[in-house]
Amino acid sequence: MTRHRRKIPIRPGLSPGTLTVNGVHTKEPVRITVIDYDEKHYSEKRVENVEDCFPFRDTDTVTWINIDGLGNTEVIERIGKHYHIHPLILEDILNTGQRPKMEDLETYLYVNLTMLQLTGPEKTIKGEHMSLIIGSNFLLSFQEDVGDVFDPVRERIRKEGRIRKFGPDYLSYALIDDIVDNYFLVIEHLEEQVEILEEELVTNATPSSLHKINTLKKSMIFLRKSIWPLREVISGMERTESSLIKESTEIYLRDVYDHVIQVIDTLETLRDMVSGMIDIYLSGLSYKMNEIMKVLTLIATIFIPLTFVAGVYGMNFRYMPEIAWEYGYYMVWGIMITMVLVMIYYFRKKQWI
Amino acid sequence: MTRHRRKIPIRPGLSPGTLTVNGVHTKEPVRITVIDYDEKHYSEKRVENVEDCFPFRDTDTVTWINIDGLGNTEVIERIGKHYHIHPLILEDILNTGQRPKMEDLETYLYVNLTMLQLTGPEKTIKGEHMSLIIGSNFLLSFQEDVGDVFDPVRERIRKEGRIRKFGPDYLSYALIDDIVDNYFLVIEHLEEQVEILEEELVTNATPSSLHKINTLKKSMIFLRKSIWPLREVISGMERTESSLIKESTEIYLRDVYDHVIQVIDTLETLRDMVSGMIDIYLSGLSYKMNEIMKVLTLIATIFIPLTFVAGVYGMNFRYMPEIAWEYGYYMVWGIMITMVLVMIYYFRKKQWI
Amino acid sequence: MTRHRRKIPIRPGLSPGTLTVNGVHTKEPVRITVIDYDEKHYSEKRVENVEDCFPFRDTDTVTWINIDGLGNTEVIERIGKHYHIHPLILEDILNTGQRPKMEDLETYLYVNLTMLQLTGPEKTIKGEHMSLIIGSNFLLSFQEDVGDVFDPVRERIRKEGRIRKFGPDYLSYALIDDIVDNYFLVIEHLEEQVEILEEELVTNATPSSLHKINTLKKSMIFLRKSIWPLREVISGMERTESSLIKESTEIYLRDVYDHVIQVIDTLETLRDMVSGMIDIYLSGLSYKMNEIMKVLTLIATIFIPLTFVAGVYGMNFRYMPEIAWEYGYYMVWGIMITMVLVMIYYFRKKQWI
Amino acid sequence: MTRHRRKIPIRPGLSPGTLTVNGVHTKEPVRITVIDYDEKHYSEKRVENVEDCFPFRDTDTVTWINIDGLGNTEVIERIGKHYHIHPLILEDILNTGQRPKMEDLETYLYVNLTMLQLTGPEKTIKGEHMSLIIGSNFLLSFQEDVGDVFDPVRERIRKEGRIRKFGPDYLSYALIDDIVDNYFLVIEHLEEQVEILEEELVTNATPSSLHKINTLKKSMIFLRKSIWPLREVISGMERTESSLIKESTEIYLRDVYDHVIQVIDTLETLRDMVSGMIDIYLSGLSYKMNEIMKVLTLIATIFIPLTFVAGVYGMNFRYMPEIAWEYGYYMVWGIMITMVLVMIYYFRKKQWI
Amino acid sequence: MTRHRRKIPIRPGLSPGTLTVNGVHTKEPVRITVIDYDEKHYSEKRVENVEDCFPFRDTDTVTWINIDGLGNTEVIERIGKHYHIHPLILEDILNTGQRPKMEDLETYLYVNLTMLQLTGPEKTIKGEHMSLIIGSNFLLSFQEDVGDVFDPVRERIRKEGRIRKFGPDYLSYALIDDIVDNYFLVIEHLEEQVEILEEELVTNATPSSLHKINTLKKSMIFLRKSIWPLREVISGMERTESSLIKESTEIYLRDVYDHVIQVIDTLETLRDMVSGMIDIYLSGLSYKMNEIMKVLTLIATIFIPLTFVAGVYGMNFRYMPEIAWEYGYYMVWGIMITMVLVMIYYFRKKQWI
Repeated sequence: MTRHRRKIPIRPGLSPGTLTVNGVHTKEPVRITVIDYDEKHYSEKRVENVEDCFPFRDTDTVTWINIDGLGNTEVIERIGKHYHIHPLILEDILNTGQRPKMEDLETYLYVNLTMLQLTGPEKTIKGEHMSLIIGSNFLLSFQEDVGDVFDPVRERIRKEGRIRKFGPDYLSYALIDDIVDNYFLVIEHLEEQVEILEEELVTNATPSSLHKINTLKKSMIFLRKSIWPLREVISGMERTESSLIKESTEIYLRDVYDHVIQVIDTLETLRDMVSGMIDIYLSGLSYKMNEIMKVLTLIATIFIPLTFVAGVYGMNFRYMPEIAWEYGYYMVWGIMITMVLVMIYYFRKKQWI
Repeated sequence: MTRHRRKIPIRPGLSPGTLTVNGVHTKEPVRITVIDYDEKHYSEKRVENVEDCFPFRDTDTVTWINIDGLGNTEVIERIGKHYHIHPLILEDILNTGQRPKMEDLETYLYVNLTMLQLTGPEKTIKGEHMSLIIGSNFLLSFQEDVGDVFDPVRERIRKEGRIRKFGPDYLSYALIDDIVDNYFLVIEHLEEQVEILEEELVTNATPSSLHKINTLKKSMIFLRKSIWPLREVISGMERTESSLIKESTEIYLRDVYDHVIQVIDTLETLRDMVSGMIDIYLSGLSYKMNEIMKVLTLIATIFIPLTFVAGVYGMNFRYMPEIAWEYGYYMVWGIMITMVLVMIYYFRKKQWI
Repeated sequence: MTRHRRKIPIRPGLSPGTLTVNGVHTKEPVRITVIDYDEKHYSEKRVENVEDCFPFRDTDTVTWINIDGLGNTEVIERIGKHYHIHPLILEDILNTGQRPKMEDLETYLYVNLTMLQLTGPEKTIKGEHMSLIIGSNFLLSFQEDVGDVFDPVRERIRKEGRIRKFGPDYLSYALIDDIVDNYFLVIEHLEEQVEILEEELVTNATPSSLHKINTLKKSMIFLRKSIWPLREVISGMERTESSLIKESTEIYLRDVYDHVIQVIDTLETLRDMVSGMIDIYLSGLSYKMNEIMKVLTLIATIFIPLTFVAGVYGMNFRYMPEIAWEYGYYMVWGIMITMVLVMIYYFRKKQWI
Repeated sequence: MTRHRRKIPIRPGLSPGTLTVNGVHTKEPVRITVIDYDEKHYSEKRVENVEDCFPFRDTDTVTWINIDGLGNTEVIERIGKHYHIHPLILEDILNTGQRPKMEDLETYLYVNLTMLQLTGPEKTIKGEHMSLIIGSNFLLSFQEDVGDVFDPVRERIRKEGRIRKFGPDYLSYALIDDIVDNYFLVIEHLEEQVEILEEELVTNATPSSLHKINTLKKSMIFLRKSIWPLREVISGMERTESSLIKESTEIYLRDVYDHVIQVIDTLETLRDMVSGMIDIYLSGLSYKMNEIMKVLTLIATIFIPLTFVAGVYGMNFRYMPEIAWEYGYYMVWGIMITMVLVMIYYFRKKQWI
Repeated sequence: MTRHRRKIPIRPGLSPGTLTVNGVHTKEPVRITVIDYDEKHYSEKRVENVEDCFPFRDTDTVTWINIDGLGNTEVIERIGKHYHIHPLILEDILNTGQRPKMEDLETYLYVNLTMLQLTGPEKTIKGEHMSLIIGSNFLLSFQEDVGDVFDPVRERIRKEGRIRKFGPDYLSYALIDDIVDNYFLVIEHLEEQVEILEEELVTNATPSSLHKINTLKKSMIFLRKSIWPLREVISGMERTESSLIKESTEIYLRDVYDHVIQVIDTLETLRDMVSGMIDIYLSGLSYKMNEIMKVLTLIATIFIPLTFVAGVYGMNFRYMPEIAWEYGYYMVWGIMITMVLVMIYYFRKKQWI
């Protein structure tokens, strides 16, 4: 259901800082788009050559360079060299299994997190490794694939929104806020699935329900792993002493922090519900078994004694007084009907029928 | 049973601070009531126009402006503008899924919490998102719907109670205290339901009991989510260095803090009890199954051998000495009665009957 | 078994500090006894009128005023007024659901805890809400009912024991120590019950065992709630900077703190044991079921095939060679005995018999 | 299996510091041995009279006084008086249920812990309450019974080992180290029992296995209670500012601290394993039940229809065409064999046989 | 599956610092290799005699002395003496059950951790106790056996990589990084096994699946014990004030710290999955049981009544009207077929078939 299994990077023996890519990547070439703006003007273009986006480093305007695709390590390396990014940070950018974290490297902040999207008609949860390099006048964002949740931010920049008055710290907040807003969509989707499954468990539990419980559980483990560390990341950004995050941005970060807490709370509630589902499933099985056993017991306890009675008078003894008696047959029916009535009374008393 | 599922706000792409409403709201227009008082005099009126309550901002008296209904964002926005409330706080006021929190914004404190009420003949638990803006001489309170638990406070203000001598900090304490007192009612209601359910589980467990256990569990998860963060909120208010909370009010806040702890303690105890109920339910099913199996086994083990004996003498062999024997029939009865006695003795020894 | 369910106080709408009584109280009037002593002399009397105990406030001697019964709020209120006790503290004294806590109000310390006693021939655990007001030269103790565990302390005061040399802080320690000593009795009683129940579960588990497990569990939840907070209360007393607790008393408080920890440790061990009992109970049921199923299966698998064989030769076909054969009957017995032997061998191999 | 249940001390009403003994003690008289040494010389003797060991207090040499048996409170009291030990500490020495702790009383340190030994051919775990009083030039050790794990230390003192150069702090370290080394033996013994039990559960689980699981669980709860607090005790000794623990000894204490952590780690691992055993046991029962049910179902479903067929042709109707048919009997056999084959095919498909 | 059970050291009574070896060691003699390098030159040799590696201590170059095999305590002791290593540290080097830890002994740092490798065709997890002594110009590494994961590091040294410019602190980082990289391989191997097992549980659970779950569980407990403490070890190295770890190395340690966290996260996720497997296994058994019971019940409830009917007309009463009736036989078949149809309809409604 969810496409969240990502390979753990295997690079034993490589010198640290040697760039390799892990995870499943599209073979598409790296796509770079540059948005450059200040309060007055704004430009947006797609760059074919990495070097084309280097001149922006030394301008006063805010420059947002977005890199889609991590497949071409050479491009990443060249950007890294130009922006003086530490080799270990470059390694983190490529390591799609990296846990969300923030690091303050004085001339820039490194932040990475997981972008979650519902894709396809089946609303599969897709997780994408996302890195941000926040400089004094630039923001680099690295994504695994083309396609993201940032169009509203782009639109706001184009439309000369409030965002144009602030620096790359506010821009990075805007991107993180968008990502967290999408977490709500994912969580809500899970909530719906939990409700549907609960319904199913009560009405008609099958082994496939168990499978679904498990799938949900795994999705939640995956989300938890992606979202929990974000708490620390954002509160780290808020409390950092770095001048790269301006004081006016802090209240916005606190706001997005609140949203993350809300997502985590809802997730924990869902986890509680799902972990209780196994019990419901098992008790459903037990109850069904009881029902089956009751029917078996009713039939067997009623007919086995009757069959015995019939068997007795099926014996071929030469000397059996009842056999010869004219009303013997009717007497046997009388006995049998009495037995049935007694047993039905007994079962009624036991509340089995 | 409980009406606590509230939609998670979905607003991806909106600029932060853009006001939208989430949750299920009544379409009623916003209703504003103003209570203005000091030790000497007191006035209370319902305001049709938002602007009518603005003059109170600059008086010396304590002004409590209560806004019922969050449906009309424009009204909220105008109040916000007049009282210089940060856009993100306005967003929190409207976000009915917001976790209880306190924020100190220097010129005012923002506090939000969940008001719980038992409504209707079925005593459904209704949660309402409630926000307080505590200023130096005013208190703004925002509620989702008309109808609250504050009538006693209003009565005390009217009656020139002690409350008239204190400022908006004491007033906000009085409101919070009332809300927490209502938590006790809700918890007590849950306690009763837990007791009834426990009784039911022991005497007559059905799958509907399981459903009830689950409903109780969910209610508790909901309450927990509403009440736990309140602890921090109130201790935050008590320990704040803001001059908006006077020292004389602190002992009262400590008192309400104690009550919150008491509610949490009772809630945890209930959670413990409810989480043990699944075990009781399952073991009840197992026990019932055992009882059924015992009856089946008794009947089957007694009659199956007897039926076999009868079957033997129902065979049609031409040469069967017992058949021709005059007392054969009585001998067979003797054998069968002996078998039954032996088996009853065995079951007695096994303590099955 | 335990009489620990106490009503949660319901007082929505009352002004804080308004005295009401909750919980189940005897209708007996309040009984006040005063013990006044210093190293040299000692007096003890029962006071009919509240005002009679007021003169002691201003003497140099240590005065212990014990109030039994919280039913008459007016008396409590008068004492409170005379000793300048804050209204919220008076409310705590009457709130029998109050969690143990300590509060330092400068001129006096407030401590409340739960006194546990085993009462009646069935050794029911009875919890009593107990409050102490520790002043510089007086100690007020408030109890729910007449009857307490303090006779040894009284005896020691009468006998000119070491206690006479110390102030109200040591006296309050002595009372708390006595209360904690009684916790040991209660815990030991529970320990015995756990052992008896464990025995019962192994030898003869019935649904009533489950009920007993649950009752024990509830008792433990109740004890936990009463005893856990005491840890903080006593360490709070020990570390307080108030001059009301003399330094010489601290080592005694540390000693009683150790005892509380020991009680808590034992309680946790018992909880661990009891929570494992459900598993034992369930596995006992499963084992019993297995035993029953085995018997059923043995009987059924042995006799059902035999009955079939008998049935075959009970058919009335005109042409059945075996029927006419002289030794047919003996052959059938031979076949049947062989079948039984084969099956017994099979069951032996499966270790079922 | 383990002899760890020790009575909780009951002494309600006794003045604190009144010495009474609790727990099961040997009636043997107290046995006192004195080892006195410095770097040069060494003496060791058994003392009949308590007073005989008092002169050592004022010598420069290190004196180790070991008291076996706590039965004679008078002797303990006399030692306590001579060495100025606080009455509450004497009470702790006699309280065999006392939790391990360290207390710094300026002129001496009090340390108590539990000595664990495997005794008897059945390797029962025996816990002994052990107290150390560490003075500037003496060490008092109190044990419940004769018999301890300190012979290697005695031997090293006799042999002029490194130990002779250090003071009572190193000596106390050496004793604690020996005690902790014995914990490894106990834990290893438990590890073996866990392995044996695991084997048994897989091959042949019986209710006695459940009993064994429970016994192991209890042993572990007991060990946990004894060993966990030791962590704090030793780190407390290491970090104490008291001059009684010399700096050179700290590295040794850190070493024994590491060992305690290692014991705790192993214990936790064992607890994890044992707590999983109940699941294995229960699933074993379920599996066995399935096997039994399968056999029953196979036999019943094969023979019940056959018996029915035989029953049909055992009916005595006057007009039954098949009866009179010459090959009727063979046809019936044909039908029955076909039925058996079909059913066997069905069971094969279901993978039941 | 995993070879992780290592004996707990038993050395009661030995003077601390007395060297003994515990655990299973190869009897091979100790093998010592020395790699000596600075930025310019480099030498590597295998040393037969311990003393041959002593001269390196006083050179300016970085010396890495690797000791394979802990069997020969005398050699270890001689190295220890030459490099002034504290006896307790030597003991830790030999104690293969030692928990990962870091200790700062001023002239050198002691670090120990567990090297994990997958060995053999069955990919058994092999844990090896590994100690590092980090001096100002030397690094001593002690391993249990010949064979390690450090070849890439050796290669980099030979190839004049960046590593040649740094000191022993960077070298030790490189070794730890290699070890942690191998943790990823081990974890990935476990991940695969978990997936295979999950598949198996859903398709065909047998008691051997339970065994596999348990084996996986134990592997994880073992890994957890090895990897958890590493977190503290590495953060301890990073934050140490010792001048032995240069500031430039800290960012590399932080990087390896991140990797350890990632390993721990994945391990916890796996633990979660495995702990849920028991439930899946048990519910699988329950489901299977239900299926079996259903078949039994269907067969029994259909044929038992039919057999009874046949039995009735097998009775030998002289006066039975139906027997003599010409169409009696066909009527009986009619009754029986009706019964079957009714029952099939009932089972359909119950959704059993």
